Amino acid sequence: MSEERDTGSNNNNSNFGFSGTTSNKGYMSYYGPGGRMLLVESALEAVGRGSTTIGIKTPAFALTSSYIKPTRPLMEPSEKIFAIDSHVGATGSGYIGDILQSIDELRIEAQKHRLTFESPIDVASLVKHLSSYLHTYTIYAVRPQAASIIIAGMDQMGTQLYQVDPGGTYFRGSAFTIGQFSDSALSLIQQEYSADMSSEQAIQLSKKAIERATGEDKPLVGTGIVHAEEGKFKKL
Amino acid sequence: MSEERDTGSNNNNSNFGFSGTTSNKGYMSYYGPGGRMLLVESALEAVGRGSTTIGIKTPAFALTSSYIKPTRPLMEPSEKIFAIDSHVGATGSGYIGDILQSIDELRIEAQKHRLTFESPIDVASLVKHLSSYLHTYTIYAVRPQAASIIIAGMDQMGTQLYQVDPGGTYFRGSAFTIGQFSDSALSLIQQEYSADMSSEQAIQLSKKAIERATGEDKPLVGTGIVHAEEGKFKKL
Amino acid sequence: MSEERDTGSNNNNSNFGFSGTTSNKGYMSYYGPGGRMLLVESALEAVGRGSTTIGIKTPAFALTSSYIKPTRPLMEPSEKIFAIDSHVGATGSGYIGDILQSIDELRIEAQKHRLTFESPIDVASLVKHLSSYLHTYTIYAVRPQAASIIIAGMDQMGTQLYQVDPGGTYFRGSAFTIGQFSDSALSLIQQEYSADMSSEQAIQLSKKAIERATGEDKPLVGTGIVHAEEGKFKKL
Amino acid sequence: MSEERDTGSNNNNSNFGFSGTTSNKGYMSYYGPGGRMLLVESALEAVGRGSTTIGIKTPAFALTSSYIKPTRPLMEPSEKIFAIDSHVGATGSGYIGDILQSIDELRIEAQKHRLTFESPIDVASLVKHLSSYLHTYTIYAVRPQAASIIIAGMDQMGTQLYQVDPGGTYFRGSAFTIGQFSDSALSLIQQEYSADMSSEQAIQLSKKAIERATGEDKPLVGTGIVHAEEGKFKKL
Amino acid sequence: MSEERDTGSNNNNSNFGFSGTTSNKGYMSYYGPGGRMLLVESALEAVGRGSTTIGIKTPAFALTSSYIKPTRPLMEPSEKIFAIDSHVGATGSGYIGDILQSIDELRIEAQKHRLTFESPIDVASLVKHLSSYLHTYTIYAVRPQAASIIIAGMDQMGTQLYQVDPGGTYFRGSAFTIGQFSDSALSLIQQEYSADMSSEQAIQLSKKAIERATGEDKPLVGTGIVHAEEGKFKKL
Amino acid sequence: MSEERDTGSNNNNSNFGFSGTTSNKGYMSYYGPGGRMLLVESALEAVGRGSTTIGIKTPAFALTSSYIKPTRPLMEPSEKIFAIDSHVGATGSGYIGDILQSIDELRIEAQKHRLTFESPIDVASLVKHLSSYLHTYTIYAVRPQAASIIIAGMDQMGTQLYQVDPGGTYFRGSAFTIGQFSDSALSLIQQEYSADMSSEQAIQLSKKAIERATGEDKPLVGTGIVHAEEGKFKKL
Amino acid sequence: MSEERDTGSNNNNSNFGFSGTTSNKGYMSYYGPGGRMLLVESALEAVGRGSTTIGIKTPAFALTSSYIKPTRPLMEPSEKIFAIDSHVGATGSGYIGDILQSIDELRIEAQKHRLTFESPIDVASLVKHLSSYLHTYTIYAVRPQAASIIIAGMDQMGTQLYQVDPGGTYFRGSAFTIGQFSDSALSLIQQEYSADMSSEQAIQLSKKAIERATGEDKPLVGTGIVHAEEGKFKKL
Repeated sequence: MSEERDTGSNNNNSNFGFSGTTSNKGYMSYYGPGGRMLLVESALEAVGRGSTTIGIKTPAFALTSSYIKPTRPLMEPSEKIFAIDSHVGATGSGYIGDILQSIDELRIEAQKHRLTFESPIDVASLVKHLSSYLHTYTIYAVRPQAASIIIAGMDQMGTQLYQVDPGGTYFRGSAFTIGQFSDSALSLIQQEYSADMSSEQAIQLSKKAIERATGEDKPLVGTGIVHAEEGKFKKL
Repeated sequence: MSEERDTGSNNNNSNFGFSGTTSNKGYMSYYGPGGRMLLVESALEAVGRGSTTIGIKTPAFALTSSYIKPTRPLMEPSEKIFAIDSHVGATGSGYIGDILQSIDELRIEAQKHRLTFESPIDVASLVKHLSSYLHTYTIYAVRPQAASIIIAGMDQMGTQLYQVDPGGTYFRGSAFTIGQFSDSALSLIQQEYSADMSSEQAIQLSKKAIERATGEDKPLVGTGIVHAEEGKFKKL
Repeated sequence: MSEERDTGSNNNNSNFGFSGTTSNKGYMSYYGPGGRMLLVESALEAVGRGSTTIGIKTPAFALTSSYIKPTRPLMEPSEKIFAIDSHVGATGSGYIGDILQSIDELRIEAQKHRLTFESPIDVASLVKHLSSYLHTYTIYAVRPQAASIIIAGMDQMGTQLYQVDPGGTYFRGSAFTIGQFSDSALSLIQQEYSADMSSEQAIQLSKKAIERATGEDKPLVGTGIVHAEEGKFKKL
Repeated sequence: MSEERDTGSNNNNSNFGFSGTTSNKGYMSYYGPGGRMLLVESALEAVGRGSTTIGIKTPAFALTSSYIKPTRPLMEPSEKIFAIDSHVGATGSGYIGDILQSIDELRIEAQKHRLTFESPIDVASLVKHLSSYLHTYTIYAVRPQAASIIIAGMDQMGTQLYQVDPGGTYFRGSAFTIGQFSDSALSLIQQEYSADMSSEQAIQLSKKAIERATGEDKPLVGTGIVHAEEGKFKKL
Repeated sequence: MSEERDTGSNNNNSNFGFSGTTSNKGYMSYYGPGGRMLLVESALEAVGRGSTTIGIKTPAFALTSSYIKPTRPLMEPSEKIFAIDSHVGATGSGYIGDILQSIDELRIEAQKHRLTFESPIDVASLVKHLSSYLHTYTIYAVRPQAASIIIAGMDQMGTQLYQVDPGGTYFRGSAFTIGQFSDSALSLIQQEYSADMSSEQAIQLSKKAIERATGEDKPLVGTGIVHAEEGKFKKL
Repeated sequence: MSEERDTGSNNNNSNFGFSGTTSNKGYMSYYGPGGRMLLVESALEAVGRGSTTIGIKTPAFALTSSYIKPTRPLMEPSEKIFAIDSHVGATGSGYIGDILQSIDELRIEAQKHRLTFESPIDVASLVKHLSSYLHTYTIYAVRPQAASIIIAGMDQMGTQLYQVDPGGTYFRGSAFTIGQFSDSALSLIQQEYSADMSSEQAIQLSKKAIERATGEDKPLVGTGIVHAEEGKFKKL
Repeated sequence: MSEERDTGSNNNNSNFGFSGTTSNKGYMSYYGPGGRMLLVESALEAVGRGSTTIGIKTPAFALTSSYIKPTRPLMEPSEKIFAIDSHVGATGSGYIGDILQSIDELRIEAQKHRLTFESPIDVASLVKHLSSYLHTYTIYAVRPQAASIIIAGMDQMGTQLYQVDPGGTYFRGSAFTIGQFSDSALSLIQQEYSADMSSEQAIQLSKKAIERATGEDKPLVGTGIVHAEEGKFKKL
């Protein structure tokens, strides 16, 4: 995605002027009017329709939480929080198949690092690997992956929180929201976040934010957290 | 498929606004308006026109059953229940050729695991393998497989029931229905399901559900079941 | 082909709504409206224009017979009945080049089995091999084979009769008809078939059915048969 | 080509309904309306515009002859009769480059057989090889060869005469005509052919037939013949 | 190119009925209406716009000559006569890059033959090699070469003169003309050619023919010749 | 990009006359009207929408600075200044994924040189490598990278400043501006630049220029600098 | 490019009749109406918009000179004169990335020759190598290089001057002009050129010609020259 993207919003209004004929939105063009990367924007649109997903970080902890859509009776909700390595976890929004592919890629990279260097991988390296992996899909005539991933972890530099987008763009920060109505979730978090909040408060905040975004009362939420003192990522 | 898919329904209304010209629904686009994966949705439409197929699981057993279309005289009905390994079975809905391809893939993976680890594969691993296998077809310029597969098995974690969709998405639960009019089949099962029902009751329920979905009186139904106590998948 | 296909009829009315522009019927789409596999349906249409071809099986024998179009003077009619192995024969309808390709594939598979296991291949394995072979052509950007094949044989399970369609779908039964006006041929066979008919009666029935389908008086018919007691496929 | 093709006529009226837009006649479709193989039909059209070419066989001999278009002064007529092996010859109609390619393929196959089995190849094997070779061009995104080949030879089964068409279809018979106005040439041959005619009479007949087809008086004709008693193919 | 091509004329009127839309003239079609090879015809059109080029052969010599367009001052005219081996020369008309490619191909083939057989290659083999080389470009999704080549040489069979066209078609004769207005050049040569003319007379004739075709007075002409007695190709 | 590009401006007005239909702006054309490289121009358009980015060089130092878009609260600004080797740094404008890819390419090339020659790479070689790397993406059917890179370094030839554009074009100079409204940034720098300005003055100038381009008051700016005397690139 | 190209003019008026729809100007067509090579013509159009570039040769020297567009302040003009080997230099007009690619190709070829034969390469061989290299890009589905190159050198045959065009066509002469308004530059040179002019006069002439073509007063011009007596190419 472009640097210009309003990073707090996934609400891609793709009014490309393609109203009449959409015949040029095909893959082989790579670029649309104004140098937009059409397929990556399509992938972002798909992410924007995914489950509301949140990451919050303070010096004391990094957590990820994701709205779990109420399934119909007799069906278990999908797993939304994934352990990558003992010190890192991730969640995502977008096409499930694409999210799973990215999660696998992260897990394998983490294991490779352990095998090669006999030490846990730092979170930034993990993020750069995923970024480069996703970027490759934007160059050739294949389908760019429709998944944004939030990665939360703990390494020598402290707690870490990143967001990686379909085109390989990544961001570092203390709070991210992706998926449906993520804007309203974000504005609540920006209002109530404090760097010295407890992890319990942060978990409550993420739930409240998902509640607001989804408009549901007591939505089902999956959460994973790593505390600076323990350094272990745990699913709640 | 997207996370947002109403997982209890295969009734994909693909009103993509392609009424006038369908020229953009071609493969090379990968994505349509709103970031939809067009070919995978087409594959799901094909599944939605397949035989009504059901999976039911309780702690005591996991069963799959599938409507077998009444064939004309002198033709044998198609096999719809497939043994994957001694402890796992599967059924599917969609293009027969694609279902068979997925079944083969499952069988080979189960055998590979036995050869490598000298133990039966757990059902979740089998499901993830099929998911990843189907996902690959969504990235390149090939045809995504038009088959949803229901997998029923028994492993160390107890009885297992999964549904895997064309794009590689999978679900875990106690009851699944796919194929034609699967919604009405599902609503009946949701009404009458009980975790302590007997396998005989479940078999009757699946037949009744298929009856309702197909509108046929005493439809031909294929069934396979694995009981927790025996751990062997058997076709009835 | 889809499970929903009315398996007794090859009369594919492809009213896809492509009347105005056919531009989307191109290959790269793989799927048309409703998740239909366009190219495979085209291949089936070609089969539906092929010679009327019949398979009949009783516990005592399995036979294949095919209408041989009256050639002009000085041209020999085409071979329509093919020996695959000593215990199996086949016939087909569709593009001759595609039929021959499938016949070759069957012959080679049968020989491979003999060389590897030093025993004749069972008919179901042969059928599954052809099914998988034809299915492959539906996934990539190549031309799906336009041939339906009827296979008649004898193995440890008794007499066998199968039909394999362009997309890899296959059926087992006691009577199959493919090609032009195969519906009317089938209805006659369904009327007159009896499991204890003699092979001579069956041969006459197949001729009568072809007569009806083609509207010709005493049409030229090629026939091959395997009797349960001898287990040898012979062309008549 | 399809089985339904009227094998005595090359007069392909390709009224595919493509009058308005021809955009779908492109290669990537493989199939047109009704399951027709468009490119192979185009190749046949090209053959139908080629030189009138004839094959005649009796138990005593097999001959091929081909109209040689009157060239302008100072240009030698093209070679139209090709020796394949000492006992087999061939001729063709269509694009010269494609004919030559098929001739080469036949020659190499004949030589391979001699080297491997130290015996001359039988004509049917040669024909099947060419058929399979030409069929391959109909499956992938390449150009199907626009050449029909008539092969005349002598082997242990006696004199042989075959026609092989662009899609790999082949015919066996006592008389073939391909190329421009081949229908009128054929009707004459059918009228005057007799199984006990002398080779001299057959040569005269073929010349007369070409005369009628081309409307030319004393057209230039190339001829090759193999007599049953000698078994050697000779160009006259 | 087709056998039907009027071999004395390069004046390809490509009235394909593509007046309105030319969208089907694309490469992926290979064939146009009536089985025409569109790209090869395009290549021939390009040849028809090339420099007027001539070949003349008698038993005593074979010569090639080509119009050399008057270049602007300070630019040397392009080389148009190429030595292939000591006994063979060539010239061509069409895209210069394509001509050069064909010339290279001929030179390499001639050298290969010398290295392998320690004898000069016969001209027919050289021609067949170029024919096959050019034919390959008509089968795959690449650009057919836009060059017609005239080859003049001397081998054990005497003097030789051939023309090879873009699709791989070749002709043998005593006089060829290709390129712009080659028809009028040809008619003059046909009028004045005599098998016992001297080489000097032939050179004058070729100049006169080019003069007539180009409408230029004393046009610049490149000439190469091989005499039967010497057997060496020399540029004049 | 073309030589004719007004190198001081990234304000690509792509009025290609494609207003009505944009269907020809697809990739497979490579060239548009007038020989324009369409995809590279699209990539340049994307660069023109990127963050305003600046490079300034005097004999005493070379610096790069880039506007860092104010992120929303709780998100860290993106890294915009990258160390390539101890003596070289870079920045870029365009798609972040593409910038990162180019940065990686530069870093790897610098390391390769150190390993091979045991000396730091000179800046011109680094620039030529990136130029050639980006150029390759313009030849094949892949996506040209949408990133312009400014490289600042110090080698035996003194301080160095280069700009490399998407098509592989590069420029050498004392001041570059790329990205949004880079023209107005450039005109300020041209006005106030002096070869003997101090690095502090240059840093202030670059900030002022970004301020003018972005219209923001005290915009966030990332800066990196290498001084001729130290020869070390440092991020400020 | 075609032989028919008016070699003194780069002013390609591409009135292909593509005014209405440009959809056929895509790459996959290779040929347009009349057998024109569309992409190569597009490449030539790009060259025609490049910097005015000149080559002049007398028996005593060969020089190349190229207009260097006045850059904005603080940007160094691009290098336009390239040393290929000690005895050869080159310049070009068109896309800079493509020019650089050709220059690299020339340099590598020259070095290869030195390593293999331990002698400097003759200029004609160098030119033929570049011609063949550029020609390859016109056959496959890649982008033909948009660069015309003027090569000036000295070898055993004396001073040499060549022009190589995008499709691989090359010319030899005493004066070449390429790029914008090269026609008016050429007419001046043709007027004032004399084979015994001094190199100083030639340099002045080339400057005057560029002045006229560009309409600029005292334009910046890059020049390289090789004198017959020294045999070393030097940039001035």
